[in-house]
Amino acid sequence: MARVSQEHLDARRRQILDGAAVCFARNGFHATSMQDVLKEVNLSAGAVYRYFSGKEELIAAIVAEVLGSVRAAFEEAARQSPPPPPDELVAAVLGRTLAARENLTVDGRPAFPRLVIQVWAETLRNEDLRAVLGEGYASVRAAWARIVESYQSAGMMSRDVEPDRVARTMIAAVIGFLAQQSLFGPAPVEVLRDGLRALMGMRDQAAAAPGSQFG
Amino acid sequence: MARVSQEHLDARRRQILDGAAVCFARNGFHATSMQDVLKEVNLSAGAVYRYFSGKEELIAAIVAEVLGSVRAAFEEAARQSPPPPPDELVAAVLGRTLAARENLTVDGRPAFPRLVIQVWAETLRNEDLRAVLGEGYASVRAAWARIVESYQSAGMMSRDVEPDRVARTMIAAVIGFLAQQSLFGPAPVEVLRDGLRALMGMRDQAAAAPGSQFG
Repeated sequence: MARVSQEHLDARRRQILDGAAVCFARNGFHATSMQDVLKEVNLSAGAVYRYFSGKEELIAAIVAEVLGSVRAAFEEAARQSPPPPPDELVAAVLGRTLAARENLTVDGRPAFPRLVIQVWAETLRNEDLRAVLGEGYASVRAAWARIVESYQSAGMMSRDVEPDRVARTMIAAVIGFLAQQSLFGPAPVEVLRDGLRALMGMRDQAAAAPGSQFG
Repeated sequence: MARVSQEHLDARRRQILDGAAVCFARNGFHATSMQDVLKEVNLSAGAVYRYFSGKEELIAAIVAEVLGSVRAAFEEAARQSPPPPPDELVAAVLGRTLAARENLTVDGRPAFPRLVIQVWAETLRNEDLRAVLGEGYASVRAAWARIVESYQSAGMMSRDVEPDRVARTMIAAVIGFLAQQSLFGPAPVEVLRDGLRALMGMRDQAAAAPGSQFG
C-alpha cells in the first residue's frame, strides 16, 4: 500500500466532514443515510469508513469541531485583561465561525445556521449527541463567566449580577441569532454587534436628560 | 343534534391544540401522526376533524396562537411611552408565554421550549409553516423596532444604531434562551432578565474608574 501523507489524510477527512455537514444541513440527521454522504463527497464506502464508523461519529465530529473552535476563542478572550467588550467579542467569534464554513451551502444559502437547527432537533432524541453538545455548552458557558468576571474586575460591568447569568444571556443572543438566520435568511454579524452595543449603552429614563449625548 | 355551547367548543379546541403541541414537542412534527394526536387527546377522529383538517392545520394554529400573543404583548409595550426597559419587558412576555403552557410537559419537563425547536426544524422543509412563522417574526420585529424608537426618543438609548438591529438582537436573545432551555434544561426567566440588565449597565473601560459604583 502506498504511503499517504498526513496532509492528504487531513484533506480527505475535511472533505468528508464538509460533505456530511451539507447533507445533515439539507435534510436533517435522521433522514440522511451514509449513502447520501458517500454520494455527496463522491468517495467509496471504503474510503469514508476508514475515517468514520457512521453517521453518529460524523455528527459528533462536526459538533465537536465547531464547539472546540468556539470554546478556544472564548477561552482566549478570557485570558485577556480586560477581554474585548461583548459586542466586539461576539461579532469576531461568530464572524470567524461563519466565515470558516461559508463555502458550505444548501440551495445557495450558508449551510451552517441550518445545520445548527438540525443538530438541535436531533439532540432532542439522541443521548450521545446531547452529551457532546452539553459538554461544549458547559465549557463555553464557563469561559463566558470568566470573561464577565473580568468585565466586573475592570469596572466595566456591575457586580450585581451573577456572571453565569450574563454568560447564558450572551450564549442565548448568539444561538438565537443563528436560529434567525437559519429560519429567515442570512444577516451580517454586524446586526448583532450593533444591537448589543445599543443595549450596552442604555440608561435609565430617570438619568436620561433630553438634549444629552443621546438626545 | 344537541346544541353545544361556545364555551364547550372552545374548551374542546384548546384540548386538541394542547394535545397536538405535546405530541409535536415529543417526537417532532414529521414523526407524529394524526393517530398519535387522537390517542393523546382521547377523542374520536370525528371529534378532532370537526376542528382541524390535519397536522398542517394543527401546527399552523399552534404557531399562530403563540406568535399572536407575543406580538400583542410587544405591540402593547410599543404603545407605552416610554416602554418598559428591555430586561423587564422580555422577562414579562417570556414569563407569561411559558406560564400559559406550563401544564404541557414531555417527560416531566416543559414541552414548550422543545416544541419551539421542533417547529424550527420542520420550518426548514415546510413552506407553509415558513410563511406563518415568517409573518409572525416580521410583526414582532416591527413592534420591537417601534419600542426601540421610543427608547431613543426618551433618551434611554443612543440613536446611533438602527432600531431594526436592536429588534433582531432582542428577538435573538429570547429565542436563543428558549433553545438553551430545550437542549439543556429549564431556567427561570430571571436569568435572561438579569443578564440583559448587566449588559445594559455596561460602560467603556476608559470611563470605568476603580472605586466607582461598579468597582
